[in-house]
Amino acid sequence: MPPFDLSVYLKERTMRVDEYLAGIIDSVDDSSGTLKKAMEYSIFAGGKRLRPIFAIAASEAVSGTLDQVLPAACALELIHTYSLIHDDLPAMDDDDYRRGVPTNHKVYGEATAILAGDALLTKAFEVLTDTVRFTSPPTALLRVSSEIARAAGDSGMVGGQMIDMESEHQNIDLDMLTSLHRKKTGALITVSIRTGSILGGGDETQVERLSEYGDCVGLAFQISDDILDVVGDQEKLGKRTGMDEARGKQTYISLLGLEESRKHAETLIDRAIDALSTFDERAEALRAIGRYVIERQA
Amino acid sequence: MPPFDLSVYLKERTMRVDEYLAGIIDSVDDSSGTLKKAMEYSIFAGGKRLRPIFAIAASEAVSGTLDQVLPAACALELIHTYSLIHDDLPAMDDDDYRRGVPTNHKVYGEATAILAGDALLTKAFEVLTDTVRFTSPPTALLRVSSEIARAAGDSGMVGGQMIDMESEHQNIDLDMLTSLHRKKTGALITVSIRTGSILGGGDETQVERLSEYGDCVGLAFQISDDILDVVGDQEKLGKRTGMDEARGKQTYISLLGLEESRKHAETLIDRAIDALSTFDERAEALRAIGRYVIERQA
Repeated sequence: MPPFDLSVYLKERTMRVDEYLAGIIDSVDDSSGTLKKAMEYSIFAGGKRLRPIFAIAASEAVSGTLDQVLPAACALELIHTYSLIHDDLPAMDDDDYRRGVPTNHKVYGEATAILAGDALLTKAFEVLTDTVRFTSPPTALLRVSSEIARAAGDSGMVGGQMIDMESEHQNIDLDMLTSLHRKKTGALITVSIRTGSILGGGDETQVERLSEYGDCVGLAFQISDDILDVVGDQEKLGKRTGMDEARGKQTYISLLGLEESRKHAETLIDRAIDALSTFDERAEALRAIGRYVIERQA
Repeated sequence: MPPFDLSVYLKERTMRVDEYLAGIIDSVDDSSGTLKKAMEYSIFAGGKRLRPIFAIAASEAVSGTLDQVLPAACALELIHTYSLIHDDLPAMDDDDYRRGVPTNHKVYGEATAILAGDALLTKAFEVLTDTVRFTSPPTALLRVSSEIARAAGDSGMVGGQMIDMESEHQNIDLDMLTSLHRKKTGALITVSIRTGSILGGGDETQVERLSEYGDCVGLAFQISDDILDVVGDQEKLGKRTGMDEARGKQTYISLLGLEESRKHAETLIDRAIDALSTFDERAEALRAIGRYVIERQA
């Protein structure tokens, strides 16, 4: 068997995700004027489609297909994108650039950016509950929608962002930092993988193993984000580095140092790949993405 | 049969809604700090619970029960409340007071208000897709969730808010104004009634008749809002009047005049009550609410 080519894999899956996302945006009400443009702008502002690809790769790992999970995978990207738009707002992180392009409110103004985020979040649940888009049974769709809502809300992403804001310039320890990131970024990554494994037809043991993979990869992803904020290349990243320190944010680096942080991320990826030990070559994409998460430059 | 007592009806139903909403807020992740308080603050800031009561009354009209629809009814109130928090933000309508109390961002700051809105919207879909809360079949829950997402998003409430903002200081005609309000406020009211009739076990003919009722009542409600902004009592309303004119907003009054607006609202309520002609005394609450919508002082 030829070695697994991650870049070809990512390119092919990204293309399918982008096509489906374009269809979703195309279905946005035209009479909403600028709203549709603002939603489209951030959806196509250079995202890596990591969450959709996690969902697709997890579906494939349990012998499911891309089509079974594609609409839900794209719903996860809608949620991720809404969270970036709102996080970038002046009242929140006040970021002017993301991925090298001006943030939504810099282009469309704050009011439209708030509404575009609201509309993307709502559209995600419109997609997730649209039975015509799926072949899975209604109970699976409800389960996935419910898990995604929990991962995105007060007990997950939104709660994590709140804790993150409130802990600026505060002393927090490693346990608190880990809990913060499990909510802020980890929960949505883990639920992306659970979504793929549930809609792909995985059994409960498979779903739990893939969750373990997701939990480890999610944290490793955050650690590598912290590392890139210190040693990364601004041009490759498309955003300013050194922002965590400037904002008085505790990071893995400030708590563990650079070398220990790298080791911690590597240990997490080892655990993630261990969690896949009972899976065959269909989980090769997940293994490769795990390694990529800590080796990436952007 | 004694005459129908709307105030007793509203009091009893509101109590059940408030109890259930308190349970939902109680389930919000405690570690989210201020987020939970900010969500609770706006949920219990004096709302009339009109959307939940429409859902409950519609369920009762098709011989369903309050319990069948209560969780979804409360999810609708979560969505309504999130939309008020975001609409009041400085970047949007910039309102300091609502229902006589300071708006969310005046108490908790803009960042928390944005996140509290996001969390309430997400919580709504968490509730709607939580099968443990419902006795209805999964297909009915998916249908209701999907209809609510469409009514709340770009083709409904968020789209309407966007059109409303973009049409300030613009000349729009009666058709455009009606279309704006169908989206901005009408869609969520109509879907509240549809939700009640679907989860209450109504047949398709009943759902369509109740939709017609909802469409008429939703528009009449907006017209009476426009009228109250001109002739209402600030103290009873708990907000400043005359704001539509100050903001350069076209209203039914500016387009039709006060008397014609009143007549138009009455015609709509007549049509709404006509749509209920095949329903028995179990629709008496909907008939009474219809009349209340145009007679209310606040």
